[in-house]
Amino acid sequence: MKFVIIGGDAAGMSAASRAKRTLPDMEVIVLEKTGDVSYSACGMPYNIADADRPMDDLVVRSADVFRKKQGIDVLTGYRAEAIDTKNRIVSGTSRHNREPFRFFYDRLLIATGGRAKIPALPGFDHPGVAALKSLKDGRAIKDFIRANPVRKVVIVGMGYIGLEMAEALRMRDLEVEMVKPGPALLPWMSRELASVVEQELHANQVRLHLGCNITAVEKTAGALQVVCDDRTLPADMVLAAIGIDPNSELAADAGIETGVGNAIAVNRRMQTSDENIYAAGDCADAYHVVTGQKTWIPLALRANRAGWTVADNVCGRPNRLEGVAGTAVFKVFGLEVARTGLSFEESQRFGFDPVDVTIQTRSRAHAHPGAETIWVNLIGDKKSGRLTGAQMVGREGVAHRINAAAVALHNRMSVRAFSQTDLAYAPPFGPVWDPLLTAANQLLKKMI
Amino acid sequence: MKFVIIGGDAAGMSAASRAKRTLPDMEVIVLEKTGDVSYSACGMPYNIADADRPMDDLVVRSADVFRKKQGIDVLTGYRAEAIDTKNRIVSGTSRHNREPFRFFYDRLLIATGGRAKIPALPGFDHPGVAALKSLKDGRAIKDFIRANPVRKVVIVGMGYIGLEMAEALRMRDLEVEMVKPGPALLPWMSRELASVVEQELHANQVRLHLGCNITAVEKTAGALQVVCDDRTLPADMVLAAIGIDPNSELAADAGIETGVGNAIAVNRRMQTSDENIYAAGDCADAYHVVTGQKTWIPLALRANRAGWTVADNVCGRPNRLEGVAGTAVFKVFGLEVARTGLSFEESQRFGFDPVDVTIQTRSRAHAHPGAETIWVNLIGDKKSGRLTGAQMVGREGVAHRINAAAVALHNRMSVRAFSQTDLAYAPPFGPVWDPLLTAANQLLKKMI
Repeated sequence: MKFVIIGGDAAGMSAASRAKRTLPDMEVIVLEKTGDVSYSACGMPYNIADADRPMDDLVVRSADVFRKKQGIDVLTGYRAEAIDTKNRIVSGTSRHNREPFRFFYDRLLIATGGRAKIPALPGFDHPGVAALKSLKDGRAIKDFIRANPVRKVVIVGMGYIGLEMAEALRMRDLEVEMVKPGPALLPWMSRELASVVEQELHANQVRLHLGCNITAVEKTAGALQVVCDDRTLPADMVLAAIGIDPNSELAADAGIETGVGNAIAVNRRMQTSDENIYAAGDCADAYHVVTGQKTWIPLALRANRAGWTVADNVCGRPNRLEGVAGTAVFKVFGLEVARTGLSFEESQRFGFDPVDVTIQTRSRAHAHPGAETIWVNLIGDKKSGRLTGAQMVGREGVAHRINAAAVALHNRMSVRAFSQTDLAYAPPFGPVWDPLLTAANQLLKKMI
Repeated sequence: MKFVIIGGDAAGMSAASRAKRTLPDMEVIVLEKTGDVSYSACGMPYNIADADRPMDDLVVRSADVFRKKQGIDVLTGYRAEAIDTKNRIVSGTSRHNREPFRFFYDRLLIATGGRAKIPALPGFDHPGVAALKSLKDGRAIKDFIRANPVRKVVIVGMGYIGLEMAEALRMRDLEVEMVKPGPALLPWMSRELASVVEQELHANQVRLHLGCNITAVEKTAGALQVVCDDRTLPADMVLAAIGIDPNSELAADAGIETGVGNAIAVNRRMQTSDENIYAAGDCADAYHVVTGQKTWIPLALRANRAGWTVADNVCGRPNRLEGVAGTAVFKVFGLEVARTGLSFEESQRFGFDPVDVTIQTRSRAHAHPGAETIWVNLIGDKKSGRLTGAQMVGREGVAHRINAAAVALHNRMSVRAFSQTDLAYAPPFGPVWDPLLTAANQLLKKMI
């Protein structure tokens, strides 16, 4: 049995490791186009925040270790360019000798990940315009800051990565401005919670330009400028952080079906429309446990988990994943920001009859010193009584609290049942009624 | 409709407030034997830790506010002494005029709480021997430390309260020794996790005396000593913290059934064996969502929630509680210690075929600075595949994480399904695989 994996990051290396652990005699070949495998991509903003830390701190395991300790044939610099699904052959070119390669497979995993979206506008190819997706991107950003007199960075986009990078660059004492065409910061968020995030950005001297139609990046004397309809933002470096696209072209060209967001469509066993070919990670879609429908939420945990599930199925241990809840957390300076499930608008769009509530409560018990405000937005479906989503913001006690709501969503819990859950209480860690329970109690009243 | 409530703490005042909000015309009478209603009992150790904070900081709402703002007849200093279930009359004595009182009720709530257990041994009634349950107890401890040259305290018992008080007293720069007859610290805990707590106590100069048969407290010249078979522990103050007993005698004397731990037996609507009489809070039992059987776990959240449920039922809005998961968290110096569900031994005792796993992981992502160790013990039932309990210890990221497991227990989730939940990940807050998921993945391997 020959198991070939295209892509050596989270999903690919998880699958490779687990397959080799399960069936040590299986031939496992990983084709990775870059020189990097198995690194903590999500850690890059935090690494960039510290000028003195080498980027390679983020490498969890080198290709060499996978080869020597685990017996996985990791081939770095191998770019897969075509899949012949009929004859089960992956072909491409090796970077080292510029020579073509061909590998026969019994089972194939496409774990090609995603790539940063770059606005299709003039000047986004200038030196000094960066994006952050691969470790190579991270090194390039760090090297650019080291090599150039960078004082000010303009970030195009205000998603997770943009916000984490805003914090990272402020830690480096750089001026940061952020710009986007849309009128709202974090449009999926309850407006009240989003305004808390906005205030935190202001408090940390990050200037936001919302609703700006960006037309180009231009070179000026020794620097750059981001040109919008109504303003021009000078910058020593520009970061494009408007999201990612799935690397699904290789699959699509081979006739494999794609779906939501152009990601490769997979069933709950991670099989594509070709039963011998699996897909996992940022290039593949997933089921959403709230809607039961397909979604594309490229995040690290589900990539690792999907890689394992592929390995199980390839190794003859049938395994399936029910889906994702869309749980995410990120840090913006002193704030923890978290979500799970659907937003109010998403709940509407997927046919629920949503009602939501936003509450403010405290992160510690009555009279306990050091308490901070916690904001919770909770969303339920009036028709079924089900919980459909939760969002939280606060200076402490948010990041892990959201998990209780995530588990509730996996179980299709009603708001009523969730409001009765026995959550932990002690004065240093929260009020008697956990913020999520207070929100659930309030939401219940609006659902009747 | 006349709704009489015996006891004006968490359960009693929650019921009174909610009943009056639901039916403003209802006559709601609260009989409270002390002068205090509605205070944060759990906050007492943290208040005691700070010499300068008045104990009354912990009062959430005074009897006067309940009377004037909410129209609840709160009668402090009213001690209920008998219930005539046939004629629906509560009688007792008022502290103010030493005169007897009698109140007719349509519906009665017994929310008499619990009381600190005091060892039935000589000398536990000496001045300087304290316990901590009521606000009055808290004031007495604080006053005693203020008025006397206290340098060293011996705590008898090593449960939540004992441990929280050990920390509080060390914050006051007092020497603390703890003593108990049993051989193990936190016997319900996995030994590996308990030893982490033990090390934390040692590191904070709390000396533990396990397996000591205590025979008496004796007065010495100007101080006290706790006498054991094999040692004598000098002390300026002794704190008895060996747990609490439910105040169920009033109910039992009236012919109302009691059950687990001598607590008043209630159904899921919080009704006692007399359908007009409800019980809630520390004096009442509850169903456990893991075993489906009765349990007695006197904690604050379920007291508040049960009070509400009584109010709903009394007000003609039928409501029931499925039960508790036994979730608890406490702080011991720098450690967060949490549990939910059953321990390994409890899982055995309740007919499960348990297997458990203990893992160590990190509180932040690979290469993220500031990470601490997190220990997780996870317990599953081999027969059904169900998760039956979880325990965690660590310096950060424990208190709220346990809630994910608690919600899983409410849903009778299998370890497999729990291992597939979409929990939040970002580098500052945990590894890609949440500690609970890593434990679930490991446990799964042992369950096959």
